[in-house]
Amino acid sequence: MSHDGTSVLAIKAFREMGSEKVWDKSRIVIPFDHIVPANNETAATLQAEVRRWARAQGIENFYDCGHGICHQVFCEMGFALPGALVVGADSHSCTYGALGAFGTGVGATDMAEIYSRGRLWFRVPETICMRLEGTLGDMVSAKDLALFVVKEMGADGANYMSVEFVGGAVERLSISGRMTLCNMGVEMGAKAAIVPPDESVDAYLARRARRPYTHIHSDPGSYYREIEYDVSDIPPMIAAPYRVDNVHPVRDLAGIEVDQVFIGTCTNGRLEDLEMAARIVKGKRVKIRTLVIPASREIYLGALRSGVIETLVEAGAMIGPPGCGPCLGAHMGVLGDGEVCLSTSNRNFPGRMGRNGKVYLASPATAAATAITGKITDPRDV
Amino acid sequence: MSHDGTSVLAIKAFREMGSEKVWDKSRIVIPFDHIVPANNETAATLQAEVRRWARAQGIENFYDCGHGICHQVFCEMGFALPGALVVGADSHSCTYGALGAFGTGVGATDMAEIYSRGRLWFRVPETICMRLEGTLGDMVSAKDLALFVVKEMGADGANYMSVEFVGGAVERLSISGRMTLCNMGVEMGAKAAIVPPDESVDAYLARRARRPYTHIHSDPGSYYREIEYDVSDIPPMIAAPYRVDNVHPVRDLAGIEVDQVFIGTCTNGRLEDLEMAARIVKGKRVKIRTLVIPASREIYLGALRSGVIETLVEAGAMIGPPGCGPCLGAHMGVLGDGEVCLSTSNRNFPGRMGRNGKVYLASPATAAATAITGKITDPRDV
Repeated sequence: MSHDGTSVLAIKAFREMGSEKVWDKSRIVIPFDHIVPANNETAATLQAEVRRWARAQGIENFYDCGHGICHQVFCEMGFALPGALVVGADSHSCTYGALGAFGTGVGATDMAEIYSRGRLWFRVPETICMRLEGTLGDMVSAKDLALFVVKEMGADGANYMSVEFVGGAVERLSISGRMTLCNMGVEMGAKAAIVPPDESVDAYLARRARRPYTHIHSDPGSYYREIEYDVSDIPPMIAAPYRVDNVHPVRDLAGIEVDQVFIGTCTNGRLEDLEMAARIVKGKRVKIRTLVIPASREIYLGALRSGVIETLVEAGAMIGPPGCGPCLGAHMGVLGDGEVCLSTSNRNFPGRMGRNGKVYLASPATAAATAITGKITDPRDV
Repeated sequence: MSHDGTSVLAIKAFREMGSEKVWDKSRIVIPFDHIVPANNETAATLQAEVRRWARAQGIENFYDCGHGICHQVFCEMGFALPGALVVGADSHSCTYGALGAFGTGVGATDMAEIYSRGRLWFRVPETICMRLEGTLGDMVSAKDLALFVVKEMGADGANYMSVEFVGGAVERLSISGRMTLCNMGVEMGAKAAIVPPDESVDAYLARRARRPYTHIHSDPGSYYREIEYDVSDIPPMIAAPYRVDNVHPVRDLAGIEVDQVFIGTCTNGRLEDLEMAARIVKGKRVKIRTLVIPASREIYLGALRSGVIETLVEAGAMIGPPGCGPCLGAHMGVLGDGEVCLSTSNRNFPGRMGRNGKVYLASPATAAATAITGKITDPRDV
């Protein structure tokens, strides 16, 4: 998997290697998501180049502007399967672990090697087993769980490890919630983040899977380390600038003024995320500029049909076309000097969404509550 | 009226004049539309500055990101009234003529004078009366009429004139269609473009008008020039690069390959435009990237409730949040090197939507037909 941004670099490396034909045109997936629609002539011209290359190579799985975010499209289209090894030229490829795949991010030159020969060298990572038990409280979701875990582990706490999420709190997460959790795996340095596949994975894949698969589970005794948390009491969590592991209970930061709320991304742009936001803003008006970007066209259509989009627009939100939106600071909601955004995305490094912007990371519920009040707000308090 | 782009300049001039307080905070209207959401830190910072200034001045009619395109919002909010003189820091302020207002575009320093004292000097323009008789054919709409008129007059054919559109073909246009027609007035150099107000204007304004108004009509014998056309036989029209008066019947250019279709703008982003597009793409799939941007939140909501958005998304279109979109080449669908866009907007000058892009201007029907085939297509031929 490579997207509009990384495909450009991978194709360049592919050519520099002297490669002419891709190894397998049916096993390369290229979704356009990072800057869609193009924000300037340079992006548009590069996208046109990738489009031409994909056509010339006969790439079978090319998803142009508007299909959605690469990781979401990759899962929806049935490429992420239990037991599969998936490499993506994007760091959040660990998302595929929600479906039991070993998904990991690689650089563009690595991707060029895969385009060419479908092979790559990996050191097998040790596995940390993280057992999350208990029942999540009201207005507490997978994102809060992910932020809690990142806080506990630290941003480098699982460097080059494979993190396996198990336990009742994980089993009760929807596939959407598991994607949120696994998506954040790389935010603690993990090479991959996996939820052992179960029947809800089978249900999700029933009409999607591209090929047969079997559930693969860790061998007994194979864990390098085991950690257990009872997560019943964790409150809504928020990561303050400028580190993803600078995590606090939302109530501890309540009242900080916010200029923009952004609900979307590969972390939290799925239907249940938008539904949660809609439930909170229904019949109210947002107080600050609020941008909602469904992670895929499938999600957008679901949200249209269930009235979620209408509720959000009635409340004053802007709805963007499926894609990454302002997450990476390239367009569509970049922050002004000193502006503050509460975002459902996964990164808040300096400059991530505008050179001097400040990004707080939280759940869709916290984002929606904050949109209503204009200040950081625990969703249990609106 | 000034928008996010021109307000920045007008505020600068206002300060340079030494002005401190605006003349009338109830009669200044500021909608944000040109780059929403902001495409980079500079735009976001400038927008934040306008927002702060408007708050400090107590501007009562401030419409932040997401409300829609300035001209559309201005009309929906009941500021454009028969007999009113409206100045907007945007050339397409002639749109307000659809409601019988004398709407005209001014520069930012002129706007600063208006902010300060509410006064400006105008030479009274001569009036050209353009009588359009006959019934528009199938798939022929106000945009085709506008392109026909621009072709006949030339891009400078009405320089500093007031163009008055009369006759049966004009009277039968909806308010939406009249806005399309008047919007293009400046594309033949007109100072203003006006449709004499009638009962359909009253119906539109019934729950909108900000103050009482009376219909004002031209005095008998006051026309500088009169022109009459029978428009019954005009076909769908298209303006080819790089002049808005380089107009041809669509069938004469049919088959030219197109990379992007854009349906939206102050010219053609209204509900009946989106409905027409949805009718044509329903049950089909677009072949090229297709961007639809409703001109306002009101229109977006109307299109949501009537299923138009769902039909467009099902067909593969991307829907952008209300605003100008790629019309002016600032973001959200800028063209790559040599790319071709068929757009429902009003300008196709070199570089308008990307330095080396080519823009063809046509109706929503032609745009939708072209989206389906990927080539310039007369909507009567799909």
